[in-house]
Amino acid sequence: MRSLSLLFFALALPAAAADPLPSWNDGAPKQAILAFVGKVTKEGPDFVPPAERIAVFDNDGCLWAEQPMYFQAFYIFDRIKELAPQHPEWTTQEPFASVLKGDIKSALASGEHGLLAMAAATHAGLTSDEFAASVIDWLATAKHPVTGKAYTDMVYQPMLELLDHLRANGFKTFIVSGGGIDFIRPWAERVYGIPPEQVIGSSLKAAYEVRDGKPVIIKLPELNFIDDKAGKPVGIHQHIGRRPIFAAGNSDGDFQMLEWTTSGEGPRFGLLVHHTDAEREFAYDRESHVGKLSKGLDEAPARGWTVVDMKGEWKTVYKP
Amino acid sequence: MRSLSLLFFALALPAAAADPLPSWNDGAPKQAILAFVGKVTKEGPDFVPPAERIAVFDNDGCLWAEQPMYFQAFYIFDRIKELAPQHPEWTTQEPFASVLKGDIKSALASGEHGLLAMAAATHAGLTSDEFAASVIDWLATAKHPVTGKAYTDMVYQPMLELLDHLRANGFKTFIVSGGGIDFIRPWAERVYGIPPEQVIGSSLKAAYEVRDGKPVIIKLPELNFIDDKAGKPVGIHQHIGRRPIFAAGNSDGDFQMLEWTTSGEGPRFGLLVHHTDAEREFAYDRESHVGKLSKGLDEAPARGWTVVDMKGEWKTVYKP
Repeated sequence: MRSLSLLFFALALPAAAADPLPSWNDGAPKQAILAFVGKVTKEGPDFVPPAERIAVFDNDGCLWAEQPMYFQAFYIFDRIKELAPQHPEWTTQEPFASVLKGDIKSALASGEHGLLAMAAATHAGLTSDEFAASVIDWLATAKHPVTGKAYTDMVYQPMLELLDHLRANGFKTFIVSGGGIDFIRPWAERVYGIPPEQVIGSSLKAAYEVRDGKPVIIKLPELNFIDDKAGKPVGIHQHIGRRPIFAAGNSDGDFQMLEWTTSGEGPRFGLLVHHTDAEREFAYDRESHVGKLSKGLDEAPARGWTVVDMKGEWKTVYKP
Repeated sequence: MRSLSLLFFALALPAAAADPLPSWNDGAPKQAILAFVGKVTKEGPDFVPPAERIAVFDNDGCLWAEQPMYFQAFYIFDRIKELAPQHPEWTTQEPFASVLKGDIKSALASGEHGLLAMAAATHAGLTSDEFAASVIDWLATAKHPVTGKAYTDMVYQPMLELLDHLRANGFKTFIVSGGGIDFIRPWAERVYGIPPEQVIGSSLKAAYEVRDGKPVIIKLPELNFIDDKAGKPVGIHQHIGRRPIFAAGNSDGDFQMLEWTTSGEGPRFGLLVHHTDAEREFAYDRESHVGKLSKGLDEAPARGWTVVDMKGEWKTVYKP
């Protein structure tokens, strides 16, 4: 009976004994998160059945860093350099020419349209398996230009704890990113515990074909979906088919996702990570070219959204 | 300690004690299913980690009936009659005119293009909540013209048992349907135990907007995705992001889904429901205007797919 006694002990251990969010200071955001999770999981007027405990998270700047530019852009630039010998035309064609000259500022000046052209040129034509392998290979060796860390080591420890705490309380956690769905999926399960079927993102169109007797999915050089701003609630609708009750973001690209999530009936939680820590991470908001947060800061108080001041609320930033 | 003893007893009860597929005769298909589930869940060369146990199911003709036409078409026809007073132009405009005259054959003669036009005309402009409510309301009262049953009572009991058996063994079950994703989601959880985020289907585009201060998702009269034939592996890629190990269908519209699923490495299972029971259901295959099954029958033996002869293998057809 010893194993049964141990089982009994484990079952009887109060769940609240350990702090589920040890990297969070004991401020209002932590208390609000714990209170929300507590009330939706307890029988009572705010109880939410497990099937409806859907939580959505932005990725860039919310689960991992996004400065000095989106990490996927570093991947794309490295792919351009790798593929350049096969594309002599890129030495004169923008934005490729700027990338090859190392002039990132000019390369990014082409905006979303240019990034899309670069993504299409470097991602399209690959099979889904080839693309996933290329992302995994790149992440295994690439280092961030400022921190020197591997990109997947620049994920936020407090957010990992939040993901775990939600899942331990019956939530299904999703990523809803403006970044590429196929770029995030290959590593999201290992790094965040989020399986590919719970990743939503921007995408190129794809086609199914049988190549030399072997079926493959090919990425096409044509935009399928941009999962940003008003696209985020649409992506949530297409992929999840019900309204989340918890949404976390960090930029005005997440505004509509938080608005859609928190305007439903019953208990709702909206969270904005505010990048205030120039020392341990990066400090930016209203004027940033990446992850601009302005409308969200203005409207958070009236909408009841929790703004997390990284510098004040987080004991640790990156995963140790 | 009585409750602990009961717990111990429940844990010790051999899982194989009860037949997990009681509505299946003891033929080769049932044995093949049980053997497959057994080997992928046991430590050994064929073990598959739970996260990779993805099973995909066609809906029309695989989980519920599809004759004399897709049930969603009945819904669309009823919506056309309901909306006709607001659309006087429909009395002369095909395929609407034929629907209003009760001439279903002519209405369907317009093919996929016509069905799409009718879906767009009757679904678009509704919010996601309004559309879901409209489907639920319709299912609550509509009856099948041949059986007189509610449509959701025309689901196949043996397939419900198969879904349950897979889930009890750590599989995630998905619907991958040529039908409308928003048409299936409102009832798939109640009827099949499949949550909305695990339903993939054809869709119209959608938009997010704030109407009178209330955020809504609006269905647009523009095709987003057709989840049929070569579209099924693409839909699986976009929504799930990994290759299933188990696929079930019943028509040549499922051919590529089974091909994609069963051509991966490791243990794989392809299943085709063959409609052979004119007495208890409908008998059709190579010449049917709905759910045509020809190439699948030809190639199943060489591809190792299991063909389920409904008449011979199923003790019960519909959910009792």
